[in-house]
Amino acid sequence: MIFCPAAISCIFSPQIDKDPMKSGSLGVGFTISRGVYAKPSADLRWNGKKIIFPTVEYVLREIKMEGVELFSELPLGCGFGLSGASALATAFLADRPAVELYDLAHVAEVVNLTGLGTVSTQAFSGLVIRKTASCPSSIVVERYNWNCELDFLSLGSISTSEVLSKRKDIADVGKKWLKEFMKEISLRNLFRCSKGFAEETGLIEPVRDLIEAVESAGGMASMAMLGKTVFAYKGFEALREFGEPFKAKIDCCGVRKVEGGGNSVQNW
Amino acid sequence: MIFCPAAISCIFSPQIDKDPMKSGSLGVGFTISRGVYAKPSADLRWNGKKIIFPTVEYVLREIKMEGVELFSELPLGCGFGLSGASALATAFLADRPAVELYDLAHVAEVVNLTGLGTVSTQAFSGLVIRKTASCPSSIVVERYNWNCELDFLSLGSISTSEVLSKRKDIADVGKKWLKEFMKEISLRNLFRCSKGFAEETGLIEPVRDLIEAVESAGGMASMAMLGKTVFAYKGFEALREFGEPFKAKIDCCGVRKVEGGGNSVQNW
Repeated sequence: MIFCPAAISCIFSPQIDKDPMKSGSLGVGFTISRGVYAKPSADLRWNGKKIIFPTVEYVLREIKMEGVELFSELPLGCGFGLSGASALATAFLADRPAVELYDLAHVAEVVNLTGLGTVSTQAFSGLVIRKTASCPSSIVVERYNWNCELDFLSLGSISTSEVLSKRKDIADVGKKWLKEFMKEISLRNLFRCSKGFAEETGLIEPVRDLIEAVESAGGMASMAMLGKTVFAYKGFEALREFGEPFKAKIDCCGVRKVEGGGNSVQNW
Repeated sequence: MIFCPAAISCIFSPQIDKDPMKSGSLGVGFTISRGVYAKPSADLRWNGKKIIFPTVEYVLREIKMEGVELFSELPLGCGFGLSGASALATAFLADRPAVELYDLAHVAEVVNLTGLGTVSTQAFSGLVIRKTASCPSSIVVERYNWNCELDFLSLGSISTSEVLSKRKDIADVGKKWLKEFMKEISLRNLFRCSKGFAEETGLIEPVRDLIEAVESAGGMASMAMLGKTVFAYKGFEALREFGEPFKAKIDCCGVRKVEGGGNSVQNW
């Protein structure tokens, strides 16, 4: 069985090219210790139920497999980068060069409009700064292994089409806050710049209350791009007022094989 | 500053091609939580002293840098994969695509005859099974993140030329034990197959006493390829009879940037 960590996108600046291998996004994101598990199957299932999932279907066609059973504790479409994680975990069921599989998952995301920088973040993993916008095989990254546990709460999804309509603005604002973050690569500055990006693009609105509640309680918080999802440092108690938050560590270990067992996959 | 984990090679089967990108080795190895730190410098230094290090000089020429200061707590030439770690850590000082830098470090090792599979193990990191022999950009790997602390003791280096003279034998024996390991991917079987490989190639002799001492004390042990170096599970006390062992965890996080600070680099 393959595991691919989920990814939180903090700052991004999309760059679309005719060639999906040259499309991607500059930005900053990190992978976490929860994610997607994949194992071969006769059809395509998500947590046991049949699902239509074009990004994963693209990967399945390319690796000539009929189906895949995907399992995750996290919700789809809420800014956890699960389409990228699903594409990567599925791709790694094939016995092919790892870098080729990274690129395949990236292209699957780009042509299905489900992600631009997520797969590169997940392929390299940890705290990843994407310094160029492209597929994993040609991307310039800086990566860090931060030993750090964060809190997460998701209230649902955000319409991507609305966001894409203001793409030009977002690209410029993303570059600005990426540059700000590069001046001081620290957890504190990650929250500052990530929130600055969310404020300046106007994306922050659906989660503003949550972020302010965490800050009022002495923690730090910002928004996962793109979902009604907040990630926070020392924010668990404040987030409990709004729902059921969970904890996860930053994970620096990328896509890997896992043996059966472990809590989340006990029943497989 | 860049950190690259050291790598222990457990089983290998060399395959040399005219093209260094197609040279490499099949086999099994793992990266550990100690390794090599690199920062830019006017000349080439190892733990503060000038050093001749052709593999690293090759990388420096390619990335057009004058020098690099390398720091490690581990000894060179004793089977910790430090030439690969040094090549990778140096390469990642350049602002270039990560996969290109993996391949550069691999080629530097191959043309300088300092390693074949080490850089691929370090590029992907964790417990890495190399299923094809090639550069990182086209290698097929299986990787695992094992949460496991091991004991290590090195008594020095082994002449590589003597080993290379029996290369044909080693290639066949390596393939055999790789296949054995693939039947059951577990820590116990890693020790069994690694030791089987070391026995059957005759490489085990310089460290046989240490391995038997660990086993007599109820632990598991085998030999790091290629050095008078033993890695062991629950072997610390037994190894103390022979020298000063140290502990390290399997590390799955690959080449990364680190901020200054941390014990081993306090004085930088």
